[in-house]
Amino acid sequence: MSFKEKGLLVVLSGPSGVGKGTVCKALRSRRSALQYSISVTTRKPRQGEIDGVHYFFRTREQFQEMIRKEELLEWAEYVGNLYGTPVGYVKETLEKGQDVILEIEVQGALQVKRRFPEALFIFLAPPSLSELKKRIIGRGTETESLIENRMSVAKSEMELMENYNYVVVNDQVDKACDRIEAIVLAEHCKVARLIEKYRKNKEFDER
Amino acid sequence: MSFKEKGLLVVLSGPSGVGKGTVCKALRSRRSALQYSISVTTRKPRQGEIDGVHYFFRTREQFQEMIRKEELLEWAEYVGNLYGTPVGYVKETLEKGQDVILEIEVQGALQVKRRFPEALFIFLAPPSLSELKKRIIGRGTETESLIENRMSVAKSEMELMENYNYVVVNDQVDKACDRIEAIVLAEHCKVARLIEKYRKNKEFDER
Repeated sequence: MSFKEKGLLVVLSGPSGVGKGTVCKALRSRRSALQYSISVTTRKPRQGEIDGVHYFFRTREQFQEMIRKEELLEWAEYVGNLYGTPVGYVKETLEKGQDVILEIEVQGALQVKRRFPEALFIFLAPPSLSELKKRIIGRGTETESLIENRMSVAKSEMELMENYNYVVVNDQVDKACDRIEAIVLAEHCKVARLIEKYRKNKEFDER
Repeated sequence: MSFKEKGLLVVLSGPSGVGKGTVCKALRSRRSALQYSISVTTRKPRQGEIDGVHYFFRTREQFQEMIRKEELLEWAEYVGNLYGTPVGYVKETLEKGQDVILEIEVQGALQVKRRFPEALFIFLAPPSLSELKKRIIGRGTETESLIENRMSVAKSEMELMENYNYVVVNDQVDKACDRIEAIVLAEHCKVARLIEKYRKNKEFDER
């Protein structure tokens, strides 16, 4: 078969506190065929963290240089540190035919959409706002006013759902993973993705 | 939640000999939440077949009356008998929120598309045309010229794939079922289907 299918870029996003990290970790442990992109960050490596494995550790200057050169698919500042997704790694992996998953904030997802409109945007949603509040409180690290602030951000983020292709409710981590895997599998069956393969496949062509 | 999600109409189709019946039977035995539509036919009931369970048995006159009244979603003549899908049963089941699967020929699928463009059209494809030929020969009921004829029909049917949403290769029945189930699950996660639910859900609305 001469046709080489490109990988899918899967963007998993949703309000903070919804459980993106937990779902991604569970997907990893299922050994899904998804490749995880390695982020660039300006924060200092923690004990045991290896450059190029856990993160690409860069200085703030190097990071800003990457922004200028448009080498980042998306980036954001968080608690004084910069975090971003290097476009090179993502493109190379997709070219090899492997699917890549990015776990990012809602604002970052919208940045990715401008450069990769053909990516698959999955919105991870809480079963309800009261459940989201419970999860945020459950972390036990936030003050009352911080919680209210995060809830109000989450509510505005819910309204950005319409920019996504799919919404997956994170009621149970396992079920959320099932749905994400189903979405990726289904996308690989889309006629729009495969029609070229059939057209280029001699055996289906010659008559 | 005030929003009632309608069921999905899933149309499974593909060249004859590809294994539509086998895949549907396997889906049934998995107890998928898919409802199977009951066909109307003018052929005589075989031993053990019950009207309203296996088929709706009708006279040719009754059948033609159904065509005139547009009570059939699609119909076709096969070996001297008429077969069709009653539109009433399909609509009622979808309204209840249940997914319905139709296993029909390619020509029938195109008829359904005119009336239900929002249905999910899945093209069941053979791994290759030589494999399809093997399966047709394997049935052992066909003469050489009939086989050639069916192969030529199959080749033109393959070209109609672009009218479908998804293509599922029937390389292994179990894998084909996995893909079909994934497609149905993924479709239920589409933002376009769910956004109304979120908009109508008070808890996500009030702020």
